[in-house]
Amino acid sequence: MRHLLSTADLGREDAVRILDTAEEMSQVSAREVKKLPVLRGRTVVNLFFEDSTRTRISFEAAAKRLSADVINFSAKGSSVSKGESLQDTAQTLAAMGADAVVVRHPGSGAPARLAAAGWIGAPILNAGDGTHEHPTQALLDAFTLRRALAGLPASGPAEGDRARGAGLDGAQVAIVGDVLHSRVARSNVHLLRALGAHVSLIAPPTLLPWGVHTWPAEVFYDFDEALAAHDFDAVMMLRVQFERMHQSFFPNTREYTRLWGLTEQRYRRLPAHTAIMHPGPMNRGFEICASAADAERALILDQVENGVSVRMAALYELLTGDGTEAQQ
Amino acid sequence: MRHLLSTADLGREDAVRILDTAEEMSQVSAREVKKLPVLRGRTVVNLFFEDSTRTRISFEAAAKRLSADVINFSAKGSSVSKGESLQDTAQTLAAMGADAVVVRHPGSGAPARLAAAGWIGAPILNAGDGTHEHPTQALLDAFTLRRALAGLPASGPAEGDRARGAGLDGAQVAIVGDVLHSRVARSNVHLLRALGAHVSLIAPPTLLPWGVHTWPAEVFYDFDEALAAHDFDAVMMLRVQFERMHQSFFPNTREYTRLWGLTEQRYRRLPAHTAIMHPGPMNRGFEICASAADAERALILDQVENGVSVRMAALYELLTGDGTEAQQ
Amino acid sequence: MRHLLSTADLGREDAVRILDTAEEMSQVSAREVKKLPVLRGRTVVNLFFEDSTRTRISFEAAAKRLSADVINFSAKGSSVSKGESLQDTAQTLAAMGADAVVVRHPGSGAPARLAAAGWIGAPILNAGDGTHEHPTQALLDAFTLRRALAGLPASGPAEGDRARGAGLDGAQVAIVGDVLHSRVARSNVHLLRALGAHVSLIAPPTLLPWGVHTWPAEVFYDFDEALAAHDFDAVMMLRVQFERMHQSFFPNTREYTRLWGLTEQRYRRLPAHTAIMHPGPMNRGFEICASAADAERALILDQVENGVSVRMAALYELLTGDGTEAQQ
Repeated sequence: MRHLLSTADLGREDAVRILDTAEEMSQVSAREVKKLPVLRGRTVVNLFFEDSTRTRISFEAAAKRLSADVINFSAKGSSVSKGESLQDTAQTLAAMGADAVVVRHPGSGAPARLAAAGWIGAPILNAGDGTHEHPTQALLDAFTLRRALAGLPASGPAEGDRARGAGLDGAQVAIVGDVLHSRVARSNVHLLRALGAHVSLIAPPTLLPWGVHTWPAEVFYDFDEALAAHDFDAVMMLRVQFERMHQSFFPNTREYTRLWGLTEQRYRRLPAHTAIMHPGPMNRGFEICASAADAERALILDQVENGVSVRMAALYELLTGDGTEAQQ
Repeated sequence: MRHLLSTADLGREDAVRILDTAEEMSQVSAREVKKLPVLRGRTVVNLFFEDSTRTRISFEAAAKRLSADVINFSAKGSSVSKGESLQDTAQTLAAMGADAVVVRHPGSGAPARLAAAGWIGAPILNAGDGTHEHPTQALLDAFTLRRALAGLPASGPAEGDRARGAGLDGAQVAIVGDVLHSRVARSNVHLLRALGAHVSLIAPPTLLPWGVHTWPAEVFYDFDEALAAHDFDAVMMLRVQFERMHQSFFPNTREYTRLWGLTEQRYRRLPAHTAIMHPGPMNRGFEICASAADAERALILDQVENGVSVRMAALYELLTGDGTEAQQ
Repeated sequence: MRHLLSTADLGREDAVRILDTAEEMSQVSAREVKKLPVLRGRTVVNLFFEDSTRTRISFEAAAKRLSADVINFSAKGSSVSKGESLQDTAQTLAAMGADAVVVRHPGSGAPARLAAAGWIGAPILNAGDGTHEHPTQALLDAFTLRRALAGLPASGPAEGDRARGAGLDGAQVAIVGDVLHSRVARSNVHLLRALGAHVSLIAPPTLLPWGVHTWPAEVFYDFDEALAAHDFDAVMMLRVQFERMHQSFFPNTREYTRLWGLTEQRYRRLPAHTAIMHPGPMNRGFEICASAADAERALILDQVENGVSVRMAALYELLTGDGTEAQQ
């Protein structure tokens, strides 16, 4: 693997290897081991063209726990706002000696363009591009699910020996909400399928992308119908991005909550073993009720904790690894 | 001690122990010793919901001199501005492995709420909350005063052996200005009293809080009268927060300066041994004249230097200590 | 050397010593050696009163590769915006234990004022002040040129033994464009002359400063005439700062490009050995065409890479050195 750009390109073998490495890293992200010296002297640049404190901090913590130096580059107020091209920004960072570049960009495909152009010799990690992909989010979701399926604690130090090597074969996963604008949904569909899970997308027709029927997933327009059809191992609620919703889609938010939210009622009807997931940040009381968000079977904070482990694994893999499959 | 939330909760014993530890740390903050390895591998998060470069940098320098990793989280442009709850932000940081969280918040009581809710297992340090408290500022003021009372250099490497173990018994301290909006004043009144000092609050009636007469302090409405009544060891001038002053209080700023400022005239009339203090940033020529600000007996820069020592001591205490008094 | 404020004060001896040290550092900035421990425990503060991500990151990378701690202080949203004076900001940083302060300021002369006032004991490095100077930019340009003149790779690990000790004697250098607003031009003219080069300034009369004829440089109002008059070793294109250009100077940008840009045509007419330089960020298609920017003989990315080496050398010199010439 040269870069981590999307889960669509990620084979099962690569994915399982990263998840297995993340198991090792979970000791460090759970703070049982303080720091690993494996990236001492390396410089990881967080190149963020879009604000995302959570993702930035998660990558920053991951890099620092591997002893790397971290430089944060927020495109606001930078040369980029003075009209510098993506090419020049990228080549500048490369010339300054960036050993890995974590890219967040509002434009779908920007990290792939960076990688394809060869402006940067260093590995590129996609930290979310437009409505396209967010591969480390999908990996941390898969990591969390794999733990849950193996009957292990959903996060914490590497008690996951039983999980190693495994995929998600036969798992039933629902992804619910604004699939249209969600890079998390896109990345998850591809990765979950690659790992052997069965994915159900549950959304109103207006919040599904064109061509969704070609995706390797079942589509439901009715949340309750979907809940009746499958015995889900996990229900992933997507964040509603109010800033992207036009009034035409939903005349009022109550309507959305009633039809597509994990309300108190729906939460109570879920089978006892169904895990609740959310990529955060949550709109409590809108797409997810507080009882569900704070339930014992909610894996939402485990997802956050596992995010650091998975990002450590990805940085480690790309900066030191000799992956057998060249992705790009 | 589990957290450092306020000085109102801080007993004399805890306070003296922190000041004594800060004496040890003063060698490092004076750059005689470069760095202590005691927090290597620990992550300190600066969670700032309000801009405060001075306080953020002071905590950042303190944490780095103890070899901790520091992650800065400014709530602007973050999930918080997307409507994420304090709970979710806190739990997210905890899940990412924060070992201590330094919180600055415009809402009075926010750090205490964070600590009480138990969302974060890590110690919480209040770096200023609304008009409530700013405990590390009070500790650094007490540290500086203790040095001065012992006849020692007000800052610098640990020459303060004579100060160790001591409180501020019998010290006469004036706090002057906008007490109403000042968390610095609140924190100082409590800590100074706990350490045995006598506190005089000097302010116009409109800039005193309701219930000030129940505080352990004497109240003056006239600066000159107060200067006549006591032989002050220190006069602490408070920053006037223009943004919080309504026109009704002061028809013009000159009037404020004439009545409540440390003007050239008042400065010249101070006894030779009265130290001048200010938490910064100063409005020179407004609440304090330049001669006073730059006088030899001004301890304002000593306060800044000691701030790093005191914050190192607080981080050290909370992250490694087995304090005997559980504060929270 | 106590500070690095301008190249006008920099003697040939000082400059050559810094360039030679930068040759040593080039192994680290090319990532062949990961990190040098020489500034472990030192704190470098980036005090930026003006946004400049490129320069800030370059200094940050340089300091971290010398194992220093870096604290970024952006004056926006800080006490400075609350009206704190430059004196108080500076003294505060000094009191917090800054071992070196890198200053970017929109006001010409601000770093020199800081140094002269003695508010900060630590060395001050000018990272660009108004339209005055940008000495590390000039040093990295000289470093890049010196490599090129010696027939060495323009950047990379220390293959530059042949360059050590040398100046730029006899080199012919053109600086083209908005000289009026360019601190890069000012710093380069002084340094290039001190190192023995012959400098030609090429600009429209309206974009030249008063008194330019007293500068140690030849002045041309016509690009093509200049190209005919000299056989340039390097052509440095200046960034056009649209924000500083008034409509009166240029009724349209096409006119500027036609007369003062390194257009496709001019680029093709350049002698084969003429190097192309630009301080970045570039306005592609405006002051420089893409073919020139991406040409093999373009040293623009080498300049960026060498910038880290030169800044490492400057920090090393000022923080550990016993330079024989006191500059301030």
